Amino acid sequence: MKRVVLLSGGMDSATLLYQEAQNVEGLYALGVHYGQRHMRELVAAQHVANSVGVPFTVVPLMGLRSILSASALTSDIPVPEGHYAAESMKATVVPMRNAIFLSVATGYAWSQGAEVVLTAVHAGDHAVYPDCRPPFIDAFNLMAQVACEGFMNPKILAPFVNMTKTEIAALGSALEVPWELTWSCYKGGEVHCGVCGTCFERREALAAFNDPTEYLKGS
Amino acid sequence: MKRVVLLSGGMDSATLLYQEAQNVEGLYALGVHYGQRHMRELVAAQHVANSVGVPFTVVPLMGLRSILSASALTSDIPVPEGHYAAESMKATVVPMRNAIFLSVATGYAWSQGAEVVLTAVHAGDHAVYPDCRPPFIDAFNLMAQVACEGFMNPKILAPFVNMTKTEIAALGSALEVPWELTWSCYKGGEVHCGVCGTCFERREALAAFNDPTEYLKGS
Repeated sequence: MKRVVLLSGGMDSATLLYQEAQNVEGLYALGVHYGQRHMRELVAAQHVANSVGVPFTVVPLMGLRSILSASALTSDIPVPEGHYAAESMKATVVPMRNAIFLSVATGYAWSQGAEVVLTAVHAGDHAVYPDCRPPFIDAFNLMAQVACEGFMNPKILAPFVNMTKTEIAALGSALEVPWELTWSCYKGGEVHCGVCGTCFERREALAAFNDPTEYLKGS
Repeated sequence: MKRVVLLSGGMDSATLLYQEAQNVEGLYALGVHYGQRHMRELVAAQHVANSVGVPFTVVPLMGLRSILSASALTSDIPVPEGHYAAESMKATVVPMRNAIFLSVATGYAWSQGAEVVLTAVHAGDHAVYPDCRPPFIDAFNLMAQVACEGFMNPKILAPFVNMTKTEIAALGSALEVPWELTWSCYKGGEVHCGVCGTCFERREALAAFNDPTEYLKGS
């Protein structure tokens, strides 16, 4: 069955891709250039897709940056430092990001003759990002099924939605995900900054799995 | 209350904009360049917005064309001729179009501090376009509310969803919508082709209201 994995270049979607790539037939990876601060993560996504032999398409939607100005990831608002679950991390919420990504991915699936779309949202996202929670996935599925009625029957799957980052790190390590190809940091420097929310989370999750990441700060 | 109207440049969204513009305060018009075959409709939208003094923003998302290849409006598939409700009109369905547009518009509303998003889908769309039907608007509202939880409480309104095109033509005429500024034709020639689905529908609806449109074919 044809299926589309949303691939960001981070640990979670890389693990999801590797899990799905146990059968690469009919598997497509899709990235979105939504005007994020840097291209590190999409370059990482390309490398991850190449490493497992899955075709990767980037949808160039940079114009989103001009209208989604409420987030530190799509504007000049400073990227907050600290733990992921902190109040300050709300600055990294991009309005309607997953609704936009999944709508685009479902449209792409339709055009490819695929009906399954996979996203790697996980439990660690729940505290800050409303569009990473199980009720969002459920509501999106209902909406998408109505939107495609008579043409296709989309299924949006979020197999990690109740898994912690550490559980994903364990799964990815077992699947031999090349962590060194993945990129998490919001800041997009030469190496991972080590102090933004997603660097904190990455470091904690990979601590027990021979983390190959070079971090600029922290220990 | 701030609100965003999705404006395509056609009769329906022009009428919706004029209805809302009875109070222009806090009113924004948003268009999407999604890689449609021609720019006639977005130029028309700009003229319509100018005529009533509402700021108009176009989101440049031309990259959608490369992935939404299943439609005659975003590919080189020929635009079908004939009545709107005909089976052949299914070629004009753009996968997930309204889900993408409304997700983008809701994200834009969030960034603008608006909570209301208006779309001019109407009953004439129901036969062909699943994402123009009342259950889609209902499902989208639920999804958007979950996606924005804790940040904003979006309301997506579709006040024409059960109106016919003729009823919209009557309303727009009463509101003095400048029909000559609007553009319906899928083909994007010098004048309206007169024989594509939306030209058929336009001609029928405006027949009783001094239609100023020049049509290439038909009578």
